[in-house]
Amino acid sequence: MIASNPDIPYYAVIFTSVKSSHSEGYSEMAEAMHKLAAQQSGFLGVESAREEVGITVSYWKDLESIKQWKLNSQHLLAQKKGREQWYSQYKTRICRVEREYSFEQ
Amino acid sequence: MIASNPDIPYYAVIFTSVKSSHSEGYSEMAEAMHKLAAQQSGFLGVESAREEVGITVSYWKDLESIKQWKLNSQHLLAQKKGREQWYSQYKTRICRVEREYSFEQ
Repeated sequence: MIASNPDIPYYAVIFTSVKSSHSEGYSEMAEAMHKLAAQQSGFLGVESAREEVGITVSYWKDLESIKQWKLNSQHLLAQKKGREQWYSQYKTRICRVEREYSFEQ
Repeated sequence: MIASNPDIPYYAVIFTSVKSSHSEGYSEMAEAMHKLAAQQSGFLGVESAREEVGITVSYWKDLESIKQWKLNSQHLLAQKKGREQWYSQYKTRICRVEREYSFEQ
């Protein structure tokens, strides 16, 4: 659910997207990419929700881990299909998490 | 939809939450807070989606703007009601956006 992370600082990739009307194969690929990301070195967790826009935030140990994941061959293929077919628009932001606070009932 | 931002670096507040079963008044407050945030100094944009978890990412010019918004009296009241009533769990992460890239069909 909510990703729990280790010591600060760590990094977040905020991926915000708007889907096109061509969603064939999207769910399967999204699930496969979540699983694959979780196996990468430096992966710390992921949170995701979609309504009008989709927001996926993945958390990483450092910038090098993010770079390696971006260049992963299966992920590159997914990114290509994303641009060709699934997304009408997206934005990726690479962030350094500097502070955090939590609440739990 | 997807927030468009000015020059890097700027700041992101990633607010991830799980709602409790007590949601009376939540939608109205959420909408009021979105409107109020948009009027604050240093506010750059916001993106939001909820499924199993809710993710709201707001974007800000600097850390001082984020601090002022956190201390806004109406927002403090909303935060208090959030802890008492609406959320079973949340996490807030303050991040410095260091790089971004976009795609538009």
